[in-house]
Amino acid sequence: MKQLNIGLIGCGFMGRTHANAFGKVHHFFDLPYRPVLKAVCARNQDAARAFAAKWDFESFETDWRKLLQREDIDAIDIASPNDTHAEIALAAAKAGKMILCEKPLAMNGPEGKTMVAAVEKAKVPNMVWYNYRRVPAVTLAKQLIDEGRLGRIFHYRAKFLQDWTISPELPQGGAGLWRLDLKVAGSGVTGDLLAHCIDTALWLNGGIDRLTAMTETFIKERKHNLTGKVERVGIDDACAFLARFRNGSLATFESTRYARGHKALYTFEINGEHASIAWDLHDLHRLQYFDHRDEGRVRGWRSLHVTDSDQPYMKHWWVPGLQIGYEHTFIHQVADFLEGLGNGRPASPTFREALDTQYVCDAVLKSARTQKWEKVPGAVKK
Amino acid sequence: MKQLNIGLIGCGFMGRTHANAFGKVHHFFDLPYRPVLKAVCARNQDAARAFAAKWDFESFETDWRKLLQREDIDAIDIASPNDTHAEIALAAAKAGKMILCEKPLAMNGPEGKTMVAAVEKAKVPNMVWYNYRRVPAVTLAKQLIDEGRLGRIFHYRAKFLQDWTISPELPQGGAGLWRLDLKVAGSGVTGDLLAHCIDTALWLNGGIDRLTAMTETFIKERKHNLTGKVERVGIDDACAFLARFRNGSLATFESTRYARGHKALYTFEINGEHASIAWDLHDLHRLQYFDHRDEGRVRGWRSLHVTDSDQPYMKHWWVPGLQIGYEHTFIHQVADFLEGLGNGRPASPTFREALDTQYVCDAVLKSARTQKWEKVPGAVKK
Amino acid sequence: MKQLNIGLIGCGFMGRTHANAFGKVHHFFDLPYRPVLKAVCARNQDAARAFAAKWDFESFETDWRKLLQREDIDAIDIASPNDTHAEIALAAAKAGKMILCEKPLAMNGPEGKTMVAAVEKAKVPNMVWYNYRRVPAVTLAKQLIDEGRLGRIFHYRAKFLQDWTISPELPQGGAGLWRLDLKVAGSGVTGDLLAHCIDTALWLNGGIDRLTAMTETFIKERKHNLTGKVERVGIDDACAFLARFRNGSLATFESTRYARGHKALYTFEINGEHASIAWDLHDLHRLQYFDHRDEGRVRGWRSLHVTDSDQPYMKHWWVPGLQIGYEHTFIHQVADFLEGLGNGRPASPTFREALDTQYVCDAVLKSARTQKWEKVPGAVKK
Amino acid sequence: MKQLNIGLIGCGFMGRTHANAFGKVHHFFDLPYRPVLKAVCARNQDAARAFAAKWDFESFETDWRKLLQREDIDAIDIASPNDTHAEIALAAAKAGKMILCEKPLAMNGPEGKTMVAAVEKAKVPNMVWYNYRRVPAVTLAKQLIDEGRLGRIFHYRAKFLQDWTISPELPQGGAGLWRLDLKVAGSGVTGDLLAHCIDTALWLNGGIDRLTAMTETFIKERKHNLTGKVERVGIDDACAFLARFRNGSLATFESTRYARGHKALYTFEINGEHASIAWDLHDLHRLQYFDHRDEGRVRGWRSLHVTDSDQPYMKHWWVPGLQIGYEHTFIHQVADFLEGLGNGRPASPTFREALDTQYVCDAVLKSARTQKWEKVPGAVKK
Repeated sequence: MKQLNIGLIGCGFMGRTHANAFGKVHHFFDLPYRPVLKAVCARNQDAARAFAAKWDFESFETDWRKLLQREDIDAIDIASPNDTHAEIALAAAKAGKMILCEKPLAMNGPEGKTMVAAVEKAKVPNMVWYNYRRVPAVTLAKQLIDEGRLGRIFHYRAKFLQDWTISPELPQGGAGLWRLDLKVAGSGVTGDLLAHCIDTALWLNGGIDRLTAMTETFIKERKHNLTGKVERVGIDDACAFLARFRNGSLATFESTRYARGHKALYTFEINGEHASIAWDLHDLHRLQYFDHRDEGRVRGWRSLHVTDSDQPYMKHWWVPGLQIGYEHTFIHQVADFLEGLGNGRPASPTFREALDTQYVCDAVLKSARTQKWEKVPGAVKK
Repeated sequence: MKQLNIGLIGCGFMGRTHANAFGKVHHFFDLPYRPVLKAVCARNQDAARAFAAKWDFESFETDWRKLLQREDIDAIDIASPNDTHAEIALAAAKAGKMILCEKPLAMNGPEGKTMVAAVEKAKVPNMVWYNYRRVPAVTLAKQLIDEGRLGRIFHYRAKFLQDWTISPELPQGGAGLWRLDLKVAGSGVTGDLLAHCIDTALWLNGGIDRLTAMTETFIKERKHNLTGKVERVGIDDACAFLARFRNGSLATFESTRYARGHKALYTFEINGEHASIAWDLHDLHRLQYFDHRDEGRVRGWRSLHVTDSDQPYMKHWWVPGLQIGYEHTFIHQVADFLEGLGNGRPASPTFREALDTQYVCDAVLKSARTQKWEKVPGAVKK
Repeated sequence: MKQLNIGLIGCGFMGRTHANAFGKVHHFFDLPYRPVLKAVCARNQDAARAFAAKWDFESFETDWRKLLQREDIDAIDIASPNDTHAEIALAAAKAGKMILCEKPLAMNGPEGKTMVAAVEKAKVPNMVWYNYRRVPAVTLAKQLIDEGRLGRIFHYRAKFLQDWTISPELPQGGAGLWRLDLKVAGSGVTGDLLAHCIDTALWLNGGIDRLTAMTETFIKERKHNLTGKVERVGIDDACAFLARFRNGSLATFESTRYARGHKALYTFEINGEHASIAWDLHDLHRLQYFDHRDEGRVRGWRSLHVTDSDQPYMKHWWVPGLQIGYEHTFIHQVADFLEGLGNGRPASPTFREALDTQYVCDAVLKSARTQKWEKVPGAVKK
Repeated sequence: MKQLNIGLIGCGFMGRTHANAFGKVHHFFDLPYRPVLKAVCARNQDAARAFAAKWDFESFETDWRKLLQREDIDAIDIASPNDTHAEIALAAAKAGKMILCEKPLAMNGPEGKTMVAAVEKAKVPNMVWYNYRRVPAVTLAKQLIDEGRLGRIFHYRAKFLQDWTISPELPQGGAGLWRLDLKVAGSGVTGDLLAHCIDTALWLNGGIDRLTAMTETFIKERKHNLTGKVERVGIDDACAFLARFRNGSLATFESTRYARGHKALYTFEINGEHASIAWDLHDLHRLQYFDHRDEGRVRGWRSLHVTDSDQPYMKHWWVPGLQIGYEHTFIHQVADFLEGLGNGRPASPTFREALDTQYVCDAVLKSARTQKWEKVPGAVKK
């Protein structure tokens, strides 16, 4: 088993989920590579040192450029805020490193396009952490769709609802709150939450042709933690859009941080001619499945407890009935990435695949401004 | 269409459900007989008059013996408290009237046996109002079991949980509260709630061979509304028992009026070799069904929304997706009773069939006293 | 108690729900008027006669104009297809009859406006059967909102999903299928299903300011049952729209008859600053309620089993835990209408109130054509 | 931070859950000790070597006696089959090692009693892996009960339902199947599944005074994998019992491996005067809570999504809404054990506390034989 030396940039929430995944994957999967936690990088030295100690990294850095120069690093994992992705990725590609990048890929489509060009030119393996594809129930949904069980698709609907920013007292910007800062995050719920919904949708249901959107910022001003001043809020607090997929199906998408009672309720449902599928993140280990071909009197939505060994990824874990959780989606993604290194079939989504999500986000934000239907360009030929 | 003249005794909660059923059934079912609300009988003249007016009875009586003498009455419906069932039924049988009797059939097995003998000697049509057999979801469960879909049965479990008598301030006895009065009710939750569970169980899973039980009276003394004095409470507040069915399956039964949070939660579940079924009264329009023969990856509990026209009784009501409720179980029972009059196949449960439930109740109360396993005699040969 | 003589026009599905409501209401409610089923009217004589017999009408007619001339009729109930509402209503108003009209009020806003003018000029009591306002759980939602429990409203979302027209073999038009015929129905799911969602939304959350919509007809041609020919389908099979309410909240609405697995799943959710509410028609006796002011560790969505006597309408029915169903919403509406006749406070929605829903539907269909955001005019000043 | 050197015996399913917990706990908790995976021990050398490699143990052994002699081992973790617990524990105590023992503690009460005596005499820290106490939702239930929120307790009910041994083709005994072998397991579902239910119940609701039980072996003979012969099955396939707690509450307990449709459905519910609590393992991240003191109209079961930082253990994990799973219960138990080493308050359940569960199991099996109510002795004074 070969080693794959990891250099992780960023030690916030996402840094933790990635470090956990790299450190744990080999206990559960037999893979051609074993990740080695070589170095973590953060601007704050104390934070970097503490994180390295906590997560068993061999070393730490405070300058990501230095990390890129290290010859003992095979892969760069970008888990820093959105506004740093492009610069780091371009440099990492130039340095010939593999790149794993936290979602969303970039601040916007054009920026993302330069990143795609860079990794493709450098021919380095690349992947974006749209982790929800690897919830076993979601992967099972993908299998069922690919097997043609749903038939012609009529409807897709997805939403991602949270309620953590309702208080006007919550500041914007700074550590832990950069997701409220337009300059750092690029957008609000669109890039943070809808990007997940869109990535899954494109994977399950193909490309989006056009859409019409609306956004809203409910709290117009908030104190900024870095400047100390009350400033205009630039991000979208809520966003919804209607869309038409290229396969002719209709869609509704919505996300917000103002839906009281929902902590992180990502749901999707897809209705086909023969069958339908529904899923929600609050009970991520279940998939709802309805098959019209079932005998009439006993036809109903089936609640699948996705913990059996013939269901995606689950043979690697415990025994039927015992659920896994959120963190395991990252472990699955690392496993697939390492598998892909071994067999030459890159784990999805690659930068190019993730660029399509960026294009949809751009169209969403544009439509919210123009108040018109907007066409969505495609990064991957379909 | 022939008329069937009804004389209803009792105008409490059960009187209302029966009157509603008789008055409404012909709108929804095509039947050989149409019930006519000829007379209602209650000791209190004002109550009887008001009830007759409210429910469109043609007349009222205050003495049930008089009602029995009326030649314009074809069927006597007993909806008065438990301690009156036997006397009225014996007299009604003698008078040659058909008899519909609210559950439980009698105060105990021996009393019930005399009632069975009376109606069988008089050869009058007879039925007991164990209405939950006619919840469409429950009837569907019966169909699935009879079709052999479950295979060998391993387990049966049922409970009926309420919480309305927790307050020690609640008096016992008197109007609306006779269910707390041992002399009138015969027992507490055993005859009131467990009797329902037992009736359904015997119907779905055959006879019970033996059982061991425990009962408890949590509030030992309550004011009696008729005497005005604080008196010892004689009824069982809670009861649970283990049982073995004649088909070899194991069972647990429980009922209580001290389960905070449950208004009238009657649930049952039956586990067979190939399939399982579960139901609960709080969502009575649904049946849960699990079939192990479903393909592995998409195997799960199906939530059947029992509102389709090919599901029991539902073609008589609205359109798929639109639920019916509690009262409709009584309408279905009237429909089946009238159908049975027409085709000579008596609607179940007859007095004799209901006697089996009485025998189980007797064994439960006996076991709670003896603290031993008790055998259950059978009224119907099986 | 005074009598109110009813003349019902139409004996299809809706005719049945209305007849049932008129005939049953007095058993459960104490009201100033008692409806008398004086006459039913249908073009087909056999159908009219059979319906009258089944539902205990005293007489029947085959020409609605004749019905309007009868002096023994106080109120005309219009339960015939959409394209007949206006003509009948205008004539009935002229004849000085009270009018109860099945939803949607009219084929479109302008037509509806003439109906409003007619009943207001004639000063006759009038009401539209948007029955879902009277689901006890929905009425409870209204109470909670009116008490200010939700605080500032951020989001409203509603959908009405069915799956009964997926088969291309299903014909359009003719008895039982007029809802697929544009000339008779006026629109597809917009007037049939979304109209319900919109009526509830306007009632719970105030007026809609503007919206953007899309519609789709998935099956382009179907055999027409009246002509016997395959014809272009004119109705919308599916419709979705984004909206902004006048109170600043954002909304998504969707309806379709192509959502496999859903028979009649009408759901809505409303998210406020302090609390949220959710409901669905498939379990109409429950209301989901989340209150952020609950203590943190035990904060969660509460599943209210709306069967207690202090919850709307439920004191008139059975005992806690025993659910009612779909048909009872009509009974409640009749009760409120009769109550309103007595106290001079008209039961809602009146024709004028229902016109607002028509205006939203018009804007939806227009936006689907123009592909632009459309403003919604208001019938009721707000 | 001090190191605590672990010697793990057994590398089956439970060995994996323990190894994972020891290796991962320091990433998420700040503790006075850090576990070091010093050695794993299994009779089969290849298995031991492979397990050590997979889980990063520094060494491996094939004889547990040798492991006990090693001075670099601080704590022995017993994850081997039930029939080995006592011998190893007695020797480990003699060797002065801390002991963590997989549940059930012993083959029976008397054996367990010798183990308690041994660890108490040796004064070594000891703990039994009843992991379900550390499901955050279950720990929250404990908090709520200890705070007195439920008031007087009336009812406790628990069940643990599986369906994996229904096929008569399944052999008994040997690797992976020792749970079906009476000589190795000591009992069937009683020690395997009910033991969990009992441990939680004693923890939440105090001691059990007496009980009456029944057991059944549905498949009487199975091929034994070690002898190759068809042999009589000695274990209980199913078990149910009624019980009375010392606090006066009534209980029903049941477990089986013949409940089609349930993979590992451990559920419990507790009904108190003021509030009730329910939980199930298939959705372990949720707790159902009903509080009668809530205002009437909005009173209902609350579904708590136990992922907030003020809920037990959850501040150590991700962000609200993101669930953890089965394996984390073991991590929590290690954390509490290490915390207990630091502050001198032993993590529960100790051997002595776990002995109480053993006594209940013994009484259950005895009652199933005697068919009588049996008293339960108490290991811990209460």
